[in-house]
Amino acid sequence: MTDLFTISSLLNIVINRLDMKPTDWIITRRSIRKYTEKKIPAEQIELLLKAGMYAPSAVNKQPWHFVVIDDHNIFDEIIAVHPNAAMLKGASHAILVCGDLHLQHDDGYWVVDCGAVTENILLAAHSIGLGACWIGIHPRENRKAALRKLLDLPDYVEPYALVSLGFPAEEKETPDRFTPGKVHYNHWGNPYFK
Amino acid sequence: MTDLFTISSLLNIVINRLDMKPTDWIITRRSIRKYTEKKIPAEQIELLLKAGMYAPSAVNKQPWHFVVIDDHNIFDEIIAVHPNAAMLKGASHAILVCGDLHLQHDDGYWVVDCGAVTENILLAAHSIGLGACWIGIHPRENRKAALRKLLDLPDYVEPYALVSLGFPAEEKETPDRFTPGKVHYNHWGNPYFK
Repeated sequence: MTDLFTISSLLNIVINRLDMKPTDWIITRRSIRKYTEKKIPAEQIELLLKAGMYAPSAVNKQPWHFVVIDDHNIFDEIIAVHPNAAMLKGASHAILVCGDLHLQHDDGYWVVDCGAVTENILLAAHSIGLGACWIGIHPRENRKAALRKLLDLPDYVEPYALVSLGFPAEEKETPDRFTPGKVHYNHWGNPYFK
Repeated sequence: MTDLFTISSLLNIVINRLDMKPTDWIITRRSIRKYTEKKIPAEQIELLLKAGMYAPSAVNKQPWHFVVIDDHNIFDEIIAVHPNAAMLKGASHAILVCGDLHLQHDDGYWVVDCGAVTENILLAAHSIGLGACWIGIHPRENRKAALRKLLDLPDYVEPYALVSLGFPAEEKETPDRFTPGKVHYNHWGNPYFK
């Protein structure tokens, strides 16, 4: 039954959401490495993939592939070869972002394009209430070789980054990362913030 | 008189709309190359810089610098050396995202970290109603050398990408970029979408 209390609760949700500006999703994103046991629904995974596919790319070549992983045997094998992948133990899914050497605009562009893809996935995950962490693959050749072998990637596909995913089981404060001294104005020697 | 049930239904619609927003900013972002003559206020430039600074980076090294450019003589010089920078002619500002070889976690990581920074700036710009376009610098060595000379960047600072900015004077549809065939499941040979 709908009563005034329900309406006032809904209004509070609206007000909180309105307070959250789009840029807040960028500012409040953190690396989340602890997850609940809840499995991410397929439609949320699809939304993350879609977010990745809407990244800009040089000459719009979209030189990427994705490997969705939820097989915990594979997670164990990745943990065995990657020093910073222990959070996969509790993850629901991971998405491996890969570059395609045949599709890229020119040599070296796949690395640039995959950066925007990976950040889109991280931001999309945060904005729908999931926790995510960027597990670095490129530029470590040994990690790239291990992932290539494990997932049977062809020679023209380069593993770039692995994103571990789950419902967050930790909360993190937003730190102060604004560093005005790193901003220059029209010339290196001229600080933007005086 | 409007009854409580109607009000509560309307509130649910509002909440659903608000829920859609964060990923919408990712999906609807496009490269905007035409701008009005209106100058971007300083507080919006600061918000874009802040968005960039909240990118993830390997071991949180934050190996980046920014050069804010609004000097049209510099824009003209960039246009003279860069084949795809003509939109600077009408831009209010540009932000050059640079990597710092001294601050990066290890060789080659600045390229990875700057990708997330640049995408954050593009998304933040779109979400506050600005138009932005990623002008590629890395991995083209001639473009990097030209920007280095023009802005007097030190040897340990690598230009990565230039983002042109202004109030949009063009509107673009959201294309369909969802390509299910690029998604694999636990193994390269296994399609995620059957």
